[in-house]
Amino acid sequence: MTQDSPSLTLAEIATQLGAGLRGDGECRVRGLATLRDAGPDQIAFLANRAYLKDLSGTRAAAVLLHPSHADECPTACLTLDNPYLGYAELSRLFDPLANREVYGIHPSAVVAEDATLGEGVSIGPQVVIESGVELAEGVVVGPGSVVGADSRIGAHSRLHANVTVYHGVEIGARVILHSGCVIGGDGFGFAHDGAGWHKIAQLGGVVLGDDVEVGSCSSIDRGALGDTVIGEDVKIDSQVQIAHNVQIGAHSALAGCVGIAGSTRVGRHCMLGGGVGLSGHLTICDGVQVTGMSLVTNSIREPGVYSSGTGAMENAQWRRNAVRFKQLDDIARRLQRLEKAGRDA
Amino acid sequence: MTQDSPSLTLAEIATQLGAGLRGDGECRVRGLATLRDAGPDQIAFLANRAYLKDLSGTRAAAVLLHPSHADECPTACLTLDNPYLGYAELSRLFDPLANREVYGIHPSAVVAEDATLGEGVSIGPQVVIESGVELAEGVVVGPGSVVGADSRIGAHSRLHANVTVYHGVEIGARVILHSGCVIGGDGFGFAHDGAGWHKIAQLGGVVLGDDVEVGSCSSIDRGALGDTVIGEDVKIDSQVQIAHNVQIGAHSALAGCVGIAGSTRVGRHCMLGGGVGLSGHLTICDGVQVTGMSLVTNSIREPGVYSSGTGAMENAQWRRNAVRFKQLDDIARRLQRLEKAGRDA
Amino acid sequence: MTQDSPSLTLAEIATQLGAGLRGDGECRVRGLATLRDAGPDQIAFLANRAYLKDLSGTRAAAVLLHPSHADECPTACLTLDNPYLGYAELSRLFDPLANREVYGIHPSAVVAEDATLGEGVSIGPQVVIESGVELAEGVVVGPGSVVGADSRIGAHSRLHANVTVYHGVEIGARVILHSGCVIGGDGFGFAHDGAGWHKIAQLGGVVLGDDVEVGSCSSIDRGALGDTVIGEDVKIDSQVQIAHNVQIGAHSALAGCVGIAGSTRVGRHCMLGGGVGLSGHLTICDGVQVTGMSLVTNSIREPGVYSSGTGAMENAQWRRNAVRFKQLDDIARRLQRLEKAGRDA
Repeated sequence: MTQDSPSLTLAEIATQLGAGLRGDGECRVRGLATLRDAGPDQIAFLANRAYLKDLSGTRAAAVLLHPSHADECPTACLTLDNPYLGYAELSRLFDPLANREVYGIHPSAVVAEDATLGEGVSIGPQVVIESGVELAEGVVVGPGSVVGADSRIGAHSRLHANVTVYHGVEIGARVILHSGCVIGGDGFGFAHDGAGWHKIAQLGGVVLGDDVEVGSCSSIDRGALGDTVIGEDVKIDSQVQIAHNVQIGAHSALAGCVGIAGSTRVGRHCMLGGGVGLSGHLTICDGVQVTGMSLVTNSIREPGVYSSGTGAMENAQWRRNAVRFKQLDDIARRLQRLEKAGRDA
Repeated sequence: MTQDSPSLTLAEIATQLGAGLRGDGECRVRGLATLRDAGPDQIAFLANRAYLKDLSGTRAAAVLLHPSHADECPTACLTLDNPYLGYAELSRLFDPLANREVYGIHPSAVVAEDATLGEGVSIGPQVVIESGVELAEGVVVGPGSVVGADSRIGAHSRLHANVTVYHGVEIGARVILHSGCVIGGDGFGFAHDGAGWHKIAQLGGVVLGDDVEVGSCSSIDRGALGDTVIGEDVKIDSQVQIAHNVQIGAHSALAGCVGIAGSTRVGRHCMLGGGVGLSGHLTICDGVQVTGMSLVTNSIREPGVYSSGTGAMENAQWRRNAVRFKQLDDIARRLQRLEKAGRDA
Repeated sequence: MTQDSPSLTLAEIATQLGAGLRGDGECRVRGLATLRDAGPDQIAFLANRAYLKDLSGTRAAAVLLHPSHADECPTACLTLDNPYLGYAELSRLFDPLANREVYGIHPSAVVAEDATLGEGVSIGPQVVIESGVELAEGVVVGPGSVVGADSRIGAHSRLHANVTVYHGVEIGARVILHSGCVIGGDGFGFAHDGAGWHKIAQLGGVVLGDDVEVGSCSSIDRGALGDTVIGEDVKIDSQVQIAHNVQIGAHSALAGCVGIAGSTRVGRHCMLGGGVGLSGHLTICDGVQVTGMSLVTNSIREPGVYSSGTGAMENAQWRRNAVRFKQLDDIARRLQRLEKAGRDA
């Protein structure tokens, strides 16, 4: 089932990346590493000036870099205007998962008779595929994952092990779902009768666009009536919570531990730092960045960078200042009085 | 296994909800939607003045609303004093899950011989039920879930797919556990010997009262000696962490990403906003609300609304203010000196 | 499969703990409880002065305590200089899990033919062990867990139910992984081409040292190129997110809901409170403590206690102060002007 990383010649890599090549195109490399760690059968890359110091001493067989650094490179090199993008492509060439044999339909999987399986679908051991599910061509469902009734998964999407997709979820093509993530659990909806809670059945679904990725142990809840909608190419890290009826615009990225409350709409090309919280029913326009662990309680209508909170400091200093925070309105009023007294004097 | 939503007449719905009816009781509806989205075979509802503007243009077959809005309703209507509560009940009438056929005991499930199964219990594929487990009548265990030894689950409770219940956990009736949640993992308890950590075995259990709901990927840890206790009708959202020996009073609600440290006691009818953190060994009285992402480090003895943190602002403004936060004690002292100088002058 | 807690004599316990004994060594106890809850067949302990008030009234058969409290103890007692450490050991003596029969290799498990299983390995129902996996002697894999290709797990480690270990992960000896945790999911790495995201395959692995414990629903992502490395005896609570290429030094402890961004290095003997966030690419030196829900955005080079944020207060007061926080830089500048005016006067 497993297979080693492939070996590729520099000429093959240059063709694949559309990169310039200086050095022996027949030279063969078997992996990818940093400038410091690469050995003589590996290729390295330089995409950040902070690592320029490591270039002269590298033992790599070749280095992928910007043409402006080619003259400083002691080895063969591949040149690209965006070497970080080249590194991304290179990493996928050497991904052992991408070159792995697949399971076919494992005999221990439980697949409903009326499920529709496209060509080349792979279903791992202990999987459950419920009634009415459609898996398009090339879908991979990892061991122990469950796909609920009537859900549809687009071509070449991959569910890693122990993923849960509830019933009636629509997943696009080339989507990646990591282990432990849950797509389509109930949104948090209850009506109060003055004494206790009455559950509101969550009748909507979840729609994930093409090329979405969801990290391990993240939750995307189904809508109360309409759907929760994640746009194409949205990247969601681990431990993220997305509540019912949230909408996220295409190409946005959400770092670990983000939480978004119900019905909030996030624009396209937004970036939310780790642990950011968005209150419910907000509208965040396109192109907004929010720094780590900020809480946003009002809609944002202008692109830009937003923050809340206070930086960390030594605890004794923090205690003194945090006490003063509780007096802050009083401090401001006393300052106004002094200013007025000065003007009146 | 799947089945469409039921179709119901308005008269049937009015009877079920105890609602007044204006219009054709024989009219048949097949689903529930918002005022804007509802089509002519659906029922809509008006429970919030913000949506009153959508009433006149709705295409719904009927609208559930407060009697005071009946005259403005262009269609048939059902009237109730608490239409939001009516919406909750309506949503459950149209819940396809509630009308789904069940698995019986799926042949791929592994059920211990000495487990006790009540009437109508449904156990999905790839489930594991360990020794000594008791499942009361009507319990549904979703695909891939595991119930540990000697745990007991009350009547009509539902575990969705890939839920984990450890050994020795007591779960009430009508409890709902969403996928990926874990009930009864070890609390975080270690003794330090000056060099490293020694594990404290977590010998307590977890007790979930009747009508508790736990969202996807949430954790409720078992007690160190006594139990972790979640009162009846407590609603817990996704990505929540409840540490060992926490006690939560009946009818409280915890939004997503809440974290509660060990041995803290939360009262009845409390509401914790998303991302709220409670330190350990606190007592929070009944009727407390804490707003999103607040940290509570002291006990709260009066009902009310509590908050911490700073609101989000544009990053450049935030940087200037956050730097001043670190000077806040100094600012307060300087202000005092000026005030004193003014008085002395 | 289940078995009751063992019964032990006080003499046996004293020998096991290296404790002094006062009272009848033949007295037999069957469990461990608090001073208040313990019955006449149980042993209790006193490790915190706050519970000294419960000593005189305890019904326990015996109490484990510091020699200085022996004279106040109304029952038999076991004396130790560090009674909390003694409690940890005692708890493990009475742990029913430690005394449970094991599964052997359950027939429903799917174990690759080329997997290597040490002596006494226990593999639960519905487990998947992929190709090339090595499980050392005494490893226990709980129901529904998945171990990915080529991963290695050290002696006497325990995976509880529904744990996911990806391919190529190295796990030390005596490691405990709780349900729902995911070790080795992809780090969050993408290159932007100006229009959208390109995935960077995560080619590194994860290394967990000996005696590591990971709580339920926590995520430890694999490295982009090198490994994510968790040192020996590191204790990680539930709902924690550790990003790619993070390094955590030995004996550190991370409470629930902590999030650590990519490539950050945490020293040895550090303690991170619940909900703490560390930005990426930081270095935190040995012996640092960070209090709950603090955000750390700069490296820390001195041991000590660090904090950020504001304490919780009544919401109306908080609103007044939080508004002033947005004026804080202005307040500071106005104060400076007043001071200058005073000096000039």
